[in-house]
Amino acid sequence: MSEHIVSSYDNDLEDLRRSISEMGGVAEKMMTDASDALVRRDTVLAQNVIVADKRLDALQREIEERAVLLIARRQPLAIDLRETVSAIRVSGDLERIGDLAKNIAKRVVAISDQAQPQKIVLGVQHMSDLVQEQLKDVLDAYGAQDTVAAHDVWERDGAIDALYNSLFRELLTYMMEDPRNISFCTHLLFCAKNVERIGDHTTNIAETIHYLATGETLTAERPKNDASNYATISPQA
Amino acid sequence: MSEHIVSSYDNDLEDLRRSISEMGGVAEKMMTDASDALVRRDTVLAQNVIVADKRLDALQREIEERAVLLIARRQPLAIDLRETVSAIRVSGDLERIGDLAKNIAKRVVAISDQAQPQKIVLGVQHMSDLVQEQLKDVLDAYGAQDTVAAHDVWERDGAIDALYNSLFRELLTYMMEDPRNISFCTHLLFCAKNVERIGDHTTNIAETIHYLATGETLTAERPKNDASNYATISPQA
Repeated sequence: MSEHIVSSYDNDLEDLRRSISEMGGVAEKMMTDASDALVRRDTVLAQNVIVADKRLDALQREIEERAVLLIARRQPLAIDLRETVSAIRVSGDLERIGDLAKNIAKRVVAISDQAQPQKIVLGVQHMSDLVQEQLKDVLDAYGAQDTVAAHDVWERDGAIDALYNSLFRELLTYMMEDPRNISFCTHLLFCAKNVERIGDHTTNIAETIHYLATGETLTAERPKNDASNYATISPQA
Repeated sequence: MSEHIVSSYDNDLEDLRRSISEMGGVAEKMMTDASDALVRRDTVLAQNVIVADKRLDALQREIEERAVLLIARRQPLAIDLRETVSAIRVSGDLERIGDLAKNIAKRVVAISDQAQPQKIVLGVQHMSDLVQEQLKDVLDAYGAQDTVAAHDVWERDGAIDALYNSLFRELLTYMMEDPRNISFCTHLLFCAKNVERIGDHTTNIAETIHYLATGETLTAERPKNDASNYATISPQA
């Protein structure tokens, strides 16, 4: 293989890394903004999140196309092939994270005229803060191909699920206390669920980092805490 | 290119098609079973759905790996490259459909001891019937590379969204009527949302068929009816 081909191949990989990093930045900002918009009932910020999603979708299509061409033209092997496949996977997860942030933003617009005690939102905010940290850490780990940091993110997903479960129960309780809370709390339930799913996607990215570094699929069961994800509670409880 | 290479390449593509078809069959059955389990409160059937998801996950990993190797080894061009990329995309959507069906099944287990009027479940069942039809039609369209049928599925997603919106309002009303309905109806809301999202994945597959046949991305806006997806209603309404 000539020097020239090797070097333009490296450039292709470097371009992919840059695009993933850009996508990560957009997805992180969308998530932070969606969460801030929810806490502050800021519909302008929410609209920004909705608009930003188009950029993320375009980036994902671009990354997928370039990665496929790279595989077809350069026939990468071993670590290079894994890095290209990983770029496709991670861009898919980031695109989904953007969709979920956009969904939260749309709900902010829907509930903007509802005057509800702020404390109801605080639980979602706390959970969102944790997931934002997960997302930041996993993107750093991907950039650095740091499997230890990735495994740490992977382990922490159980805590997010546990938090979601207690939030789920709390929101049901507010709904039972006062039917005027039902509509608002239902949207918050979906927001919380979206945040939890963003957490799942950070876990996917952590698994991709493991695959990228080792060539193996992480087959251990995820540290799921989702038993009470499906809890029911009664008004008398 | 020798006769031998062409023919083993065709075999590879044929294998991919067969695996996608198998995945489609498993995903369809999971969705039908999850819906039946919900209507009949059949926890045994629900457990079957949960178990079947492992098979779907394994099939997806296998298809992705084989498709990537096929691209790297055979460097397919034009339609063949698109078919291989499409196999990766469709297997991703089918895997997500399986996850959503599994999520419904888990909720069936959670609410199995709740005695609620059956009429509350009927709206979800009706919506699920429509989406099952969409899924069947889009899988047939993929097998036949039938863009007209795919476009028909794509158009019909708007009706599913509209149905979800009216169901959302209906379930909120039941919750406001009687706080004892809240826990049950919350799980049904998530089931309905999952069915709607399965509908979104059938739309994704329809778009992949368009890309496969034409090489172009369907850029028209989806016929979304999601304005009232984010509706709120008040107890006095």
